Amino acid sequence: MSVSGLLRDIEDVGRDTTRGGYSRFVFDSSEMALREWFTAEASRRSLEVEVDRNGALWAWRPGSSMTDAVVTGSHLDSVPGGGAFDGPLGIASSFAALDLLDARGFAARRPLAIVAFPEEEGARFGVACLGSRLMTGAISPEKALNLRDSEGTTFGEAAVRAGLDASLIGADHERLRRTAAFVELHVEQGRGLADLDQPVAMASSILGHGRWRLSVTGEGNHAGSTLMRDRRDPMVAAAGIVVAVQEIARRFDGARATVGRLVPVPGGTNVIASRVDLWLDARHPDDAVTAAVVREIGDRAAEIALGQGCHVTLTEESYGGTVHFDARLRDRVGAVLPQAPLLATGAGHDAGALASHVPTAMLFTRNPTGVSHSPEEFVEAADAEEGAVALAAVLEDLLGSDA
Amino acid sequence: MSVSGLLRDIEDVGRDTTRGGYSRFVFDSSEMALREWFTAEASRRSLEVEVDRNGALWAWRPGSSMTDAVVTGSHLDSVPGGGAFDGPLGIASSFAALDLLDARGFAARRPLAIVAFPEEEGARFGVACLGSRLMTGAISPEKALNLRDSEGTTFGEAAVRAGLDASLIGADHERLRRTAAFVELHVEQGRGLADLDQPVAMASSILGHGRWRLSVTGEGNHAGSTLMRDRRDPMVAAAGIVVAVQEIARRFDGARATVGRLVPVPGGTNVIASRVDLWLDARHPDDAVTAAVVREIGDRAAEIALGQGCHVTLTEESYGGTVHFDARLRDRVGAVLPQAPLLATGAGHDAGALASHVPTAMLFTRNPTGVSHSPEEFVEAADAEEGAVALAAVLEDLLGSDA
Repeated sequence: MSVSGLLRDIEDVGRDTTRGGYSRFVFDSSEMALREWFTAEASRRSLEVEVDRNGALWAWRPGSSMTDAVVTGSHLDSVPGGGAFDGPLGIASSFAALDLLDARGFAARRPLAIVAFPEEEGARFGVACLGSRLMTGAISPEKALNLRDSEGTTFGEAAVRAGLDASLIGADHERLRRTAAFVELHVEQGRGLADLDQPVAMASSILGHGRWRLSVTGEGNHAGSTLMRDRRDPMVAAAGIVVAVQEIARRFDGARATVGRLVPVPGGTNVIASRVDLWLDARHPDDAVTAAVVREIGDRAAEIALGQGCHVTLTEESYGGTVHFDARLRDRVGAVLPQAPLLATGAGHDAGALASHVPTAMLFTRNPTGVSHSPEEFVEAADAEEGAVALAAVLEDLLGSDA
Repeated sequence: MSVSGLLRDIEDVGRDTTRGGYSRFVFDSSEMALREWFTAEASRRSLEVEVDRNGALWAWRPGSSMTDAVVTGSHLDSVPGGGAFDGPLGIASSFAALDLLDARGFAARRPLAIVAFPEEEGARFGVACLGSRLMTGAISPEKALNLRDSEGTTFGEAAVRAGLDASLIGADHERLRRTAAFVELHVEQGRGLADLDQPVAMASSILGHGRWRLSVTGEGNHAGSTLMRDRRDPMVAAAGIVVAVQEIARRFDGARATVGRLVPVPGGTNVIASRVDLWLDARHPDDAVTAAVVREIGDRAAEIALGQGCHVTLTEESYGGTVHFDARLRDRVGAVLPQAPLLATGAGHDAGALASHVPTAMLFTRNPTGVSHSPEEFVEAADAEEGAVALAAVLEDLLGSDA
């Protein structure tokens, strides 16, 4: 089946009528509907589906030993108001690649699985690549189980409601050991391929990045009766911090720092906020530079808060250093796809979380505008098929040989 | 019954476990519970309760002609995470004042009603004093019916669900004509009484104030893969505007300008926002100064947005000029309460919305910290009783004479 045909079947799942695009959050009704779609597509291809201890879906070729396996896949969840491709394109391309291999009667010498990792975006519980991080042990089960969504529900509660056993959540070394290679196809989140006029690329590395939460506390009060000089307004301090984040990031070549989420408490129009929470996303190829950027932001935030009679705390919520993908696997993929350019990416991926445990590679499919995490994210149908063809070629190479 | 005793009966209704304090929004389950409480307290006192066409509750002395009436009361709804007193103190003090009059066998020569106006805070549908503005015709029914809450529900839909007839919502001149005087008691939202060491004040005037919505649009994109120089980030522009609001307001003596509500869309940590909505609350005793402040903020906002490659729109959502309360009624109240100082207030009230249609007065009860619109809002029990005693004295004077 074509990649476009597969994606068409889910084009109405999880539409966000307020923000535009899609809001598909781990274990919510729309992500659960996508899981059913995944399971149905796997069943149509006679794959056996299991849910691992951390909520990832695995669709296996039947009768396979499940050791020395080649694994491909991506994720189903989205950012709030995200595009149709970030995540699902990799899943749909995996099924389409399998169809291409089946159509030519290819007999694999190794087991193959298609995987869908949960909470890759961290849009619900705040930690990106939560499923793959749990699998590798990069985050402890205790910490993960107690992460809360904006309604106060913990990851543990949501996972149990989705059918998981909370006592089993955590590192799954056995499963990592059984995985010989992981290949993730993803929509490119940049204009690298568009500029080079190519449909498919290989990843060289993923920028190191993390999330920090800044909490600015002041004094909640009435917006009408409190004189300007009597205020300790955390919104003004938070705004000063957002402006400083841009100014600081611009001074470090190659750094990116963003505040995309900011929540005033209580958030009333005629109320001076008592607290403002804001989240910083910061990335740079050199981990030491990311650390320097965040340190400088923290120092400046403290100064700005003080100037408003407020107080600020800075807490790291997650951090992953720059990932260089396995050179041997990359060379092998490069031999199969000699036209494909090698691109670094600023976006995080489950492939990055797995890369220090399993030989891992990534393919990117062209995004004509480079826009992602937005309803405007786009992939031409022809490019989507080219991506599946490239993935099929890579899988064929990996599955057909013991090397 | 004591004011404290009355408030104790509703101390568990609508608690906000996330923000602290209370979130009681018009027609939501907690505000509906407070309406039931109002109705029950009215029935205990043999008052007849009616809901007017705009959703205000009126509790009348039985057998009264309902013309030339003295009306007292306030509102039941709160800001998000508000205090226990803003609104309910005025309602509880009205019942307590009536009890004091009844206890001394006072026979009124005029009808008396206790009223609870809906959506005084504008916390759900964005327009403060919505019930009283509808009653006077200051807002058209068409505009009011189409106001939307954050879930997309219109005021019309919510009103119909609460039992109102949408076709009857709007100006109620007949009811205004039947009202000889309106007296609202309210917790002071400032430290005027605390500084003067007095429990109760009279209001001289209400600061003119309004709400404006600023919408900053940029380009949503991926926080990791978009270089700083390629961004059109509306969050940075919005932050610059918040900083400018403080700076501009500080330059106009007596002006107050606040951004307490700010919503980035889509609001993901790893997403450059595509749009940020923020609400400006601006007030000054001189309406021309308020207009100048808002004009300057609008001009600066346009400049700041342009500097970030963004675009901003500024829309007035509501405006009410400075209100000077009826001088004759104020002098009469002053004669009854010779100790009570005369205070201006920066906060808006239903009394302000009614003042140009009905002789209107306000009493304020001491707030030891001045903090309001916050869980920390407070009134000493003894001061609450003093407030009810003062209100009873004013009502006695107004009810007992035809003057």
